[in-house]
Amino acid sequence: MPAQALHTQNDPDVALQRLRERFRQVRATSEALCAPLAIEDYGIQGMPDASPPKWHLAHTTWFFETFLLLPYQPGYRTPDPRYDLLFNSYYLTHGQPFPRPQRGLLSRPTVAEVLNWRRVVNLAMEDLLDHPPPGKLETLCQRLELGLQHEQQHQELLLMDLLYNFSLNPLAPAYRDDLPAVSEQPPAPLRWHSHAGGLVEIGHAGDGFAFDCERPRHKVWLEPFRLASRPVSNADYLAFLLDGGYSRSELWLSDGWATLRQANWQAPLYWRHDEERGWREFTLTGLQPLNLSAPVCHLSFFEADAYARWADARLPSEAEWEAVAQTLPVSGHFLDAGLLRPQPSPGVPGTQPAQLFGDVWEWTASAFLPYPGFQPLGGSLGEYNGKFMCGQQVLRGGCCVTPPDHLRASYRNFFYPHMRWAFSGLRLARDETA
Amino acid sequence: MPAQALHTQNDPDVALQRLRERFRQVRATSEALCAPLAIEDYGIQGMPDASPPKWHLAHTTWFFETFLLLPYQPGYRTPDPRYDLLFNSYYLTHGQPFPRPQRGLLSRPTVAEVLNWRRVVNLAMEDLLDHPPPGKLETLCQRLELGLQHEQQHQELLLMDLLYNFSLNPLAPAYRDDLPAVSEQPPAPLRWHSHAGGLVEIGHAGDGFAFDCERPRHKVWLEPFRLASRPVSNADYLAFLLDGGYSRSELWLSDGWATLRQANWQAPLYWRHDEERGWREFTLTGLQPLNLSAPVCHLSFFEADAYARWADARLPSEAEWEAVAQTLPVSGHFLDAGLLRPQPSPGVPGTQPAQLFGDVWEWTASAFLPYPGFQPLGGSLGEYNGKFMCGQQVLRGGCCVTPPDHLRASYRNFFYPHMRWAFSGLRLARDETA
Amino acid sequence: MPAQALHTQNDPDVALQRLRERFRQVRATSEALCAPLAIEDYGIQGMPDASPPKWHLAHTTWFFETFLLLPYQPGYRTPDPRYDLLFNSYYLTHGQPFPRPQRGLLSRPTVAEVLNWRRVVNLAMEDLLDHPPPGKLETLCQRLELGLQHEQQHQELLLMDLLYNFSLNPLAPAYRDDLPAVSEQPPAPLRWHSHAGGLVEIGHAGDGFAFDCERPRHKVWLEPFRLASRPVSNADYLAFLLDGGYSRSELWLSDGWATLRQANWQAPLYWRHDEERGWREFTLTGLQPLNLSAPVCHLSFFEADAYARWADARLPSEAEWEAVAQTLPVSGHFLDAGLLRPQPSPGVPGTQPAQLFGDVWEWTASAFLPYPGFQPLGGSLGEYNGKFMCGQQVLRGGCCVTPPDHLRASYRNFFYPHMRWAFSGLRLARDETA
Amino acid sequence: MPAQALHTQNDPDVALQRLRERFRQVRATSEALCAPLAIEDYGIQGMPDASPPKWHLAHTTWFFETFLLLPYQPGYRTPDPRYDLLFNSYYLTHGQPFPRPQRGLLSRPTVAEVLNWRRVVNLAMEDLLDHPPPGKLETLCQRLELGLQHEQQHQELLLMDLLYNFSLNPLAPAYRDDLPAVSEQPPAPLRWHSHAGGLVEIGHAGDGFAFDCERPRHKVWLEPFRLASRPVSNADYLAFLLDGGYSRSELWLSDGWATLRQANWQAPLYWRHDEERGWREFTLTGLQPLNLSAPVCHLSFFEADAYARWADARLPSEAEWEAVAQTLPVSGHFLDAGLLRPQPSPGVPGTQPAQLFGDVWEWTASAFLPYPGFQPLGGSLGEYNGKFMCGQQVLRGGCCVTPPDHLRASYRNFFYPHMRWAFSGLRLARDETA
Repeated sequence: MPAQALHTQNDPDVALQRLRERFRQVRATSEALCAPLAIEDYGIQGMPDASPPKWHLAHTTWFFETFLLLPYQPGYRTPDPRYDLLFNSYYLTHGQPFPRPQRGLLSRPTVAEVLNWRRVVNLAMEDLLDHPPPGKLETLCQRLELGLQHEQQHQELLLMDLLYNFSLNPLAPAYRDDLPAVSEQPPAPLRWHSHAGGLVEIGHAGDGFAFDCERPRHKVWLEPFRLASRPVSNADYLAFLLDGGYSRSELWLSDGWATLRQANWQAPLYWRHDEERGWREFTLTGLQPLNLSAPVCHLSFFEADAYARWADARLPSEAEWEAVAQTLPVSGHFLDAGLLRPQPSPGVPGTQPAQLFGDVWEWTASAFLPYPGFQPLGGSLGEYNGKFMCGQQVLRGGCCVTPPDHLRASYRNFFYPHMRWAFSGLRLARDETA
Repeated sequence: MPAQALHTQNDPDVALQRLRERFRQVRATSEALCAPLAIEDYGIQGMPDASPPKWHLAHTTWFFETFLLLPYQPGYRTPDPRYDLLFNSYYLTHGQPFPRPQRGLLSRPTVAEVLNWRRVVNLAMEDLLDHPPPGKLETLCQRLELGLQHEQQHQELLLMDLLYNFSLNPLAPAYRDDLPAVSEQPPAPLRWHSHAGGLVEIGHAGDGFAFDCERPRHKVWLEPFRLASRPVSNADYLAFLLDGGYSRSELWLSDGWATLRQANWQAPLYWRHDEERGWREFTLTGLQPLNLSAPVCHLSFFEADAYARWADARLPSEAEWEAVAQTLPVSGHFLDAGLLRPQPSPGVPGTQPAQLFGDVWEWTASAFLPYPGFQPLGGSLGEYNGKFMCGQQVLRGGCCVTPPDHLRASYRNFFYPHMRWAFSGLRLARDETA
Repeated sequence: MPAQALHTQNDPDVALQRLRERFRQVRATSEALCAPLAIEDYGIQGMPDASPPKWHLAHTTWFFETFLLLPYQPGYRTPDPRYDLLFNSYYLTHGQPFPRPQRGLLSRPTVAEVLNWRRVVNLAMEDLLDHPPPGKLETLCQRLELGLQHEQQHQELLLMDLLYNFSLNPLAPAYRDDLPAVSEQPPAPLRWHSHAGGLVEIGHAGDGFAFDCERPRHKVWLEPFRLASRPVSNADYLAFLLDGGYSRSELWLSDGWATLRQANWQAPLYWRHDEERGWREFTLTGLQPLNLSAPVCHLSFFEADAYARWADARLPSEAEWEAVAQTLPVSGHFLDAGLLRPQPSPGVPGTQPAQLFGDVWEWTASAFLPYPGFQPLGGSLGEYNGKFMCGQQVLRGGCCVTPPDHLRASYRNFFYPHMRWAFSGLRLARDETA
Repeated sequence: MPAQALHTQNDPDVALQRLRERFRQVRATSEALCAPLAIEDYGIQGMPDASPPKWHLAHTTWFFETFLLLPYQPGYRTPDPRYDLLFNSYYLTHGQPFPRPQRGLLSRPTVAEVLNWRRVVNLAMEDLLDHPPPGKLETLCQRLELGLQHEQQHQELLLMDLLYNFSLNPLAPAYRDDLPAVSEQPPAPLRWHSHAGGLVEIGHAGDGFAFDCERPRHKVWLEPFRLASRPVSNADYLAFLLDGGYSRSELWLSDGWATLRQANWQAPLYWRHDEERGWREFTLTGLQPLNLSAPVCHLSFFEADAYARWADARLPSEAEWEAVAQTLPVSGHFLDAGLLRPQPSPGVPGTQPAQLFGDVWEWTASAFLPYPGFQPLGGSLGEYNGKFMCGQQVLRGGCCVTPPDHLRASYRNFFYPHMRWAFSGLRLARDETA
């Protein structure tokens, strides 16, 4: 990560002060997100990918301890040196991580012990920020910013994972049962916004924070294309399903069809159907009637791709998506809206594509690959993104559980094409000439 | 289960009174066993076989609700009818059980909710015992006794499972850290006790409780044999290990060797070795130096069988074991001793084989099969034992975490030959003429 | 294997002469069984258990080379020393066997090369038998007899495996299409033959050949029982199937039900059903209409056990079976009858149970365990039977593809309870008092 | 596939005549490639991906029968209608394919029967080409060309698969033992050829045949880059291996490292090492000493990528590769050279990158994705390429077993990143500014 973080701020003290406030806010948010949980909820892990809340609280703490306190705060003493082993996620160059599928087996340390560790680390961090080691301020600020972005990623993961873990319990627990209902006002009909293509630039530039994989900004040639005015809705997707979408092999990629058959997919991840109550959807507010107006959510890439083929369209490339999105303000329904579910698209069409940011991540047609000239971070932090650049697909735009100041037009999320537990939907694109 | 339980007691009221006291005691013991746990410990499940403590507390309660309260206590109302689905273990004729491997994912109901369920059921049971339905007293007493024996089985399972689940945590938590150390006094040298063989009788007879699989008492012809004076000790077993026991295929059954290779066994389940500290063993009191004097524990049948072959001996059949054991008092180190680990054999030899009861279960050479004339219980309770009579081996004698009034000379425990998480060891036998 | 083989024959030269003739006959039979095959058929392996015909031809040859020629025929030179690696089956103390699941991948050596190897070994064996090394005659004869019994076992396996391998080909090839049809005359109604029980003797005694696992002859106490007059027929079994046999969990052992669900069993292994043609069965003569009169065949132990429970009966123990069978002549439909399918039971009842020998192997209720006083053979040959004494069930009586002079009343065949590709059926038993 | 195939040829009769000759030549080549095989070799399948030679001979025949004879030759009668089921590979919209992993189990039809089918189809094709149905000539020629290209693909696959299947046999059979040795002359030192980048065009244009995935020709923006003068050699790769390449996680993609650990990779697929003979390589000419001068071959994408990272370089994108390759003649060591192994690069450096075509396929950094404006073929033939556009990586340039007239600069081969059984190597690239 080049040293952009501070360039917008001429005065290092002001920058530091801003980061310190942000540190407090981000750390407090993680704990606030856990407030509705029972102690028992902190420990469960329904699949290797869906880590327990306690693990998220601990791992984000491990990051600050490992990359900031241990190198830069000489007097720092960890409450338990074995936490390093337990809460390293995947930095292979930093010891041997505890096996991911077994995170749900760690009844110890207890929640109270993890919260205590958080307090110890928070205090030590405050101390470090009060007395930064000479000559290390820039590195410190960079790593701190990275640690905060990292914790924000885990805030979203914590809610994704919790939803998945709760979904396996026949009691169908609700994370929150005090949220307002989602509007069922139908969205405006889908329209198409044209883009002339040509030589565009995408990727992050400038001083603000961005992950290494968003850089460098670079040129891409685009053919003329059209982008849909809104995400695909549950009503749209239900039409695909009722048209035999899950039983027509010709609509699916080969790997997608194999996955569908092996996993017996018949609908999006959290859709449930019975004769009596029709279609319902499991959400962070429990089992709810399927809201036909809202964007479809919790799709795999394979499902998004098959839907697009059925709709005689395609997914946009990430360059197409970003070429449009970078002209728009980064606003939408994020975590701070507190709604925790994607909201229906506006009932009246706008002059620009709606909901590019927030509500649901949008699968793109692009594999997650390095940009031309990509340089990973140095040391263990170099494992952050680069080593995952194979076999995954890019999603764009953030969702209803993404922290708002975490997202950018250049932000690249990525998952394997079979994964469905993210808040992932899609937006259609077409060749202009098609 | 024929109606033996009451025959020792001419007065039904006295019998009922005794059962009620026993009900209180057994139910209270289950909860007392959980007293040292953190809330987080109640939920973890390290393998499909090792259910969480909370599940044991709930499932034993489900048994009373399902087989006693719902049929015989008309006004009974369950706190949540969905518990029936969640806490049925394997009675396929009674609905579809929740998948065993996912028991650790049920953060709800919480521990507090399960304890409340226990209280509701306990009160309703007291009420039922105060006012038994006319003409049902005998059935009631039989099912009650079965429910108590069932809960005692789960008390042992709860500790076995907990030990396993804790063993996967690199922090090596101790269930109890306040127990006295185990003596390291070496046992007397192994000697052999001869039995003349001939036509013997084994199996349960008489009025006391026994599981269906222990009946009927029947004749078995035995050749003359010798039984070892004590279980195999850790020192004995270490000699086998150091003699290449885990790398010599000719000592192992074919399935045992395949298991060893696939699972990479190099020592008993909970033995740990490092250069610095030598051999240690994970126990309910945490990681401890290996006590060479104590009986070896947490062996699979395959390991017990290989050890016996190495020692130029064999495992006893269950008939041989019982022919000797039924002449001795059922006394030894059981759960009530509160030691939670097998104790060394006496330093001076006795006139009878020592430690046939308690300390460690002893693998036998016998497959778990029906006795001649075996009759399973009727209805769903018929699934209790009979349907497991394939592919498993019999163990005898109880162990240091078996409730003391749960064991009999005719008691048949059984596990698959690769399983190691029970408190399982072995005692050698030989043909008299060998 | 103690030295029984020669004791019936006072004159060693005569014994040797007899064995030599038997050697020629057995070796020729293996090749004759392959005569109907295309070269392509010699190489296929449909599952790890179902070895290719070429492998059987080679492995039986390997046995003579390894255990007779290499130790006792100093000038013997193998055509290729690497065959030792390729065609060792499971003698772990004799090198590292080639992986069983990959036997179907060995296109080389070719069939012609294997047949040449057979010729080389046959000639060398003749030479060895002409000039036996001094003082080794007894050992030689024992090993030779064992090698011949071994090759006869593989003759049966060759046909079992071939049937399985062909069954996976949608073209449904017939091994033989020139055999007479099987009678469809219904068998006599099932009757019961009583046995008084008491102290009986089973196991092999005397001088003739027997495998180590059949020894020693020993006493067993039996309760009075009844044995069915004939095996269960296809008509009988179809009634079970049509009565919901494959969908009623209460009829099945726990492991059996799990296997049925996982493998989606809905009928015996080779039964096929379609609307147009009804029930058919794949056989060595191709796909044939199901013969309702013939004994049911290709059942797992789990299916046999479930059928017996449905029929309010049970399987006999191997001691019960042998107590009856040892009083009868060893005659029935074996391989030499050339029918290759089980034949219907007699239409008129006899005074003794019919078809105890031949037609179908009969699953027993007994696990394959060592007899009291069991002693395995020495050296690598000790791996012949003893190491399989865990987890398998005994079958008795031989079948329509068993070489006739290979069977005895004491013969113990064994398979895992889920296996179905042997010619395995069942005969019912009941307690006398039931 | 648009109708380009004929546009270069004004006279349809001449075009047809040319195709007929090509048909004869391609069909004869497939059979000629099998001439060195034993009958037994035609049937083996060492993994699901490595189909038996017989299957390749039959499947390519199925293509002509299904897509040409059955629709356009009314009198055509197949020798066996069930072949359609057996030899459909993956066209899900055309019936249910026989399971790929079981292709090695089809001993029937025999080789002779398959060769007979080929003859029947060849004759019927000749007849069809003599009397093409009116108005179908263009479609016919397009499908015929596609069928021939398809068969050429399978010629390469046949040799790849055969090499893999033979590699599992400890006898290490040689497909050919009559080939000249490969030169061991070291290649010239690696040099770098610069490309200025900018807006380039790639993809197929014009009239000649190309697969749908190579179209349409389209613009791509490239940053300046450098391309290595030759592929990475065995000597180069050995240096990586000896530098701990297979034990340093930081050199590997995350999925690559997981694959390496799970599959225990320690060297390229066919490298063997022992103390006595050092490094050897299994080839179509048997086990040979590793030729250090030749290009490294049989690498996964993961290994190619890790090597590049170790060498402080990267893989080229497919656009970079094609931008250079499309300026060069398509010449090199292909199947017609008859060498069957990659040859060392020239000992003297040239003015252009050497060996872009032939010898080894070169892994690129590009995922196999649709080009902008991609249109699949219609009907079942649309399954040819498009449905595989997920999770695979592009390789370029052909190899020593690719038919020579099959390759183009725009040709896109693709495999999953873990696959190693293709003749796959790599060529390094670097950013110009790196």
